[in-house]
Amino acid sequence: MVLCGGSANDLPKMSPEIVKQFNIVDSFDNHSKIPEHLEHVDFAAKQSGKVGVISVGWDPGLFSMNRLLGESILPQGETYTFWGEGLSQGHSEAVRRVEGVKNAVQYTVPIESELNKARTGQGANSNAANRHKRVCYVVADKQDEGRIEKEIKTMPHYFEDYETEVYFISDDELAKNHSKMRHGGFVIHSGETSADHNQALEFSATLDSNPEFTASVLVAYARAAYKLNQAGDKGAKTAFDIPYTALTPKSREDIIRELL
Amino acid sequence: MVLCGGSANDLPKMSPEIVKQFNIVDSFDNHSKIPEHLEHVDFAAKQSGKVGVISVGWDPGLFSMNRLLGESILPQGETYTFWGEGLSQGHSEAVRRVEGVKNAVQYTVPIESELNKARTGQGANSNAANRHKRVCYVVADKQDEGRIEKEIKTMPHYFEDYETEVYFISDDELAKNHSKMRHGGFVIHSGETSADHNQALEFSATLDSNPEFTASVLVAYARAAYKLNQAGDKGAKTAFDIPYTALTPKSREDIIRELL
Repeated sequence: MVLCGGSANDLPKMSPEIVKQFNIVDSFDNHSKIPEHLEHVDFAAKQSGKVGVISVGWDPGLFSMNRLLGESILPQGETYTFWGEGLSQGHSEAVRRVEGVKNAVQYTVPIESELNKARTGQGANSNAANRHKRVCYVVADKQDEGRIEKEIKTMPHYFEDYETEVYFISDDELAKNHSKMRHGGFVIHSGETSADHNQALEFSATLDSNPEFTASVLVAYARAAYKLNQAGDKGAKTAFDIPYTALTPKSREDIIRELL
Repeated sequence: MVLCGGSANDLPKMSPEIVKQFNIVDSFDNHSKIPEHLEHVDFAAKQSGKVGVISVGWDPGLFSMNRLLGESILPQGETYTFWGEGLSQGHSEAVRRVEGVKNAVQYTVPIESELNKARTGQGANSNAANRHKRVCYVVADKQDEGRIEKEIKTMPHYFEDYETEVYFISDDELAKNHSKMRHGGFVIHSGETSADHNQALEFSATLDSNPEFTASVLVAYARAAYKLNQAGDKGAKTAFDIPYTALTPKSREDIIRELL
């Protein structure tokens, strides 16, 4: 069962309940509550003899794996995660709540100079807020623009601590250029293996559709849930626990011959 | 035992022999002979009850995993591997054999326009020779330069089929700027999830020292060999078979809390 509910209210109930009867996969993405969710799914899955793969997608999921890979291979190093360029639902809504705003979208954008510092081992800013800027495209009446821009840029929590850019565009332009759920990001780990030798690993996703990509990851891990369960495994699993042989429909012999 | 022998003559003998007594890890990188090597190590390791992790490093190894990940998640897509910018030992030696060449290095360099085609789902050239160029830095006497450049560019197998650039530099410059074993590359998979939605995943390595990085990967997989064997596993394993939980010295609880 591929569970596509939300992390706030749906999955905490659905995943432990449905794994009593089926192998499941979910994209639970409330990072701080993952250990608790894992425990609940694991308890139910061990009783039913099923496999519950939790928290897969790109972050948590593929990005998490690259964070772990980086520090496992290059322990004398630093990992930085950058999100975007991508559309943020929560921040778009915050802009739309400003008086006079007719419509708006907000993109989270990695700051190029911070990306370069992470890549070259110079150390990017350790506060994620200082590694990203926020870019807003807003539809509003001409006479409101000055006040709206100021209200957005000074909004506590959402924009105050960020480098924020506000552009006013037409309704048509918003519909034409800003209707896709584009997203993506970068996991950059760079470390030293000797005094003069920097080594950098980078994993990135550039996604025209965030929901369609997450669905594609869920499908690959649904295959893994089935394969692991067929092999006698049970309980809750994360992306960290699952070898890549479980993700593919091909045989081990074929992937070793074709892709190794 | 971390085996650092060569793939041509050392590892085919060493790995099946030493796995009779110890868990091993090797970086066997003769792609076409991996299935045979796997079989020999697997046979010996199953008898001794040890784990033999073979063919880890960055390619084969981390790059192979990203090729498999891409096609497992986005089956309607294409994967392209680019090598470099990096120093190639074999091609550097070929240049040094040209009469009049006092010293030389050769870099394999991905062609930028092909990288961009791979990233944007336009389809890069399917022949790897057409996705890379070869850049040579040569030390020679002034009067030989014309002939040497021509001989390099027309050399069969090595340069004839490639876009090749030849630069003449001084001995001092060669020693100063071209003594590191820099290497790296890109695995780019891009695929469609619906008619208008391209999704791209990219994994890259930028390495100041190819041998030091490969050694770092071997050490992480040596940890995995030990952990798998402690858990009762035996036989030959590739990077495809090993979950990331085995690579880290941290507990599963810690990595889930800190990195997922």
